[in-house]
Amino acid sequence: MIIVGELINASRKAVGAAIEKQDADYVKSVAVDEDKAGAHYIDVNAGIFVGQEADYLKWLTTVVQSVTEKPCALDSPDPKAIEAALSVHKGTPMINSISMEKDRWDKLLPVVAGTDFKVVALCMSDGGMPTTCADRLAIADKLVEGLTAKKVDITNIYIDPLVQPLGTNDSFGLEFINTVAALKERYPGVHFMCGLSNISYGLPERKFLNRIFMAQAIYAGLDGAIMNPLDKPMMGTIAAAEALAGRDRSCVKYLKAFRAGLVVS
Amino acid sequence: MIIVGELINASRKAVGAAIEKQDADYVKSVAVDEDKAGAHYIDVNAGIFVGQEADYLKWLTTVVQSVTEKPCALDSPDPKAIEAALSVHKGTPMINSISMEKDRWDKLLPVVAGTDFKVVALCMSDGGMPTTCADRLAIADKLVEGLTAKKVDITNIYIDPLVQPLGTNDSFGLEFINTVAALKERYPGVHFMCGLSNISYGLPERKFLNRIFMAQAIYAGLDGAIMNPLDKPMMGTIAAAEALAGRDRSCVKYLKAFRAGLVVS
Repeated sequence: MIIVGELINASRKAVGAAIEKQDADYVKSVAVDEDKAGAHYIDVNAGIFVGQEADYLKWLTTVVQSVTEKPCALDSPDPKAIEAALSVHKGTPMINSISMEKDRWDKLLPVVAGTDFKVVALCMSDGGMPTTCADRLAIADKLVEGLTAKKVDITNIYIDPLVQPLGTNDSFGLEFINTVAALKERYPGVHFMCGLSNISYGLPERKFLNRIFMAQAIYAGLDGAIMNPLDKPMMGTIAAAEALAGRDRSCVKYLKAFRAGLVVS
Repeated sequence: MIIVGELINASRKAVGAAIEKQDADYVKSVAVDEDKAGAHYIDVNAGIFVGQEADYLKWLTTVVQSVTEKPCALDSPDPKAIEAALSVHKGTPMINSISMEKDRWDKLLPVVAGTDFKVVALCMSDGGMPTTCADRLAIADKLVEGLTAKKVDITNIYIDPLVQPLGTNDSFGLEFINTVAALKERYPGVHFMCGLSNISYGLPERKFLNRIFMAQAIYAGLDGAIMNPLDKPMMGTIAAAEALAGRDRSCVKYLKAFRAGLVVS
């Protein structure tokens, strides 16, 4: 499972304040926590700072990579912000994210074309958010065709089918997971990246629902998530779900998660 | 989800003792607990009492049905024990279980042929326990063909693909769940019945693993389980998993489970 740590996001109050004060120590401490907890990428997002996003994203990238070897997920729809961060980024970044919305596609495609960057591709178009599996597959087809035509390798594409709240439609869980299963079969080698927590919006015991949804999505083929890696019950759930889905030789990762206190009945 | 309460089983010490003492009150209390907790069938098993199984199974059936309207799952490979219990059973029972083991098949087929009983059919043959999905499907084909040829309706067949411990083979979770998915597609209308807890044998935090496995199996199509209905975290997991799998209109059952205190983050 590829885990992108989501915590360094300016829309979170403490992070936004740290960015404004240029409090590198706070940002570093979060990055170290996410790294140690098992994040493979550290997401950096300065989207709330209109006009200063590029400078702040570059600063965040520098600060984060001063304390971790992990690559960043550069989280912006603005190619200027991405380019600014790329100018200092070490290693192979993840670009979060392109979509089939025309403006976003046109602006970000040149940034990722011909690179070996990991590219998060949202199943979103100017037609709005898809609701059914078929809608998602139609957009995913265009994303994969368009990106591979521009020499982005299929194995560097991380499709986000976009989760919608179960509370607004009984079938939104199934439509999402069925999309994962269908894309896995249709495009061998493609990856997934997704925030799952939207599934439980408006329902009680959201964290519980989120974990059960993660377990099901992993069985269907989900292999990436943008999430809080400090969420121990979720990390334990992922370890168990991957072992049960045949992705953990001799249950080594599950046993490691157990020893780390992540698995608690 | 069809839940068969598993607690009235003579191999459990307190139940075995109650049967020997003919302590109807204890058996009744367990039956009432299972009924209230949401069991659709109350399993009755007196298998440890060689020579007295038929009498005891009949007694258990009478005692259980004196306090609940729920039908029983008559749990024995011995047609004499099943017939004795059937002589007093009210409603439509579940017969637990037939298999492709020749002796068991030959003895139990006449009991279920042409009836509207629910029939649990184990994916087991004289060739031993299947390990792969393909092995399970081959046995399931014979079970379904053989039972429907004897006028058991496909919707009354509850296939148990048999869970084997993940700790002995990394792929045993996946092989089981893939079997559920394949059978659901191959035989529309067929049901499943299964004890899942064997999956976690030999691994730490078994209950945690069992719940994650249940969530995944429900997504794949599992619609029945023989289990302890008093296991609240498992019951909450089932409610969440069914809602996420699109089987719970307006999340009514999930919200009910939440209000009953079954869903706890």
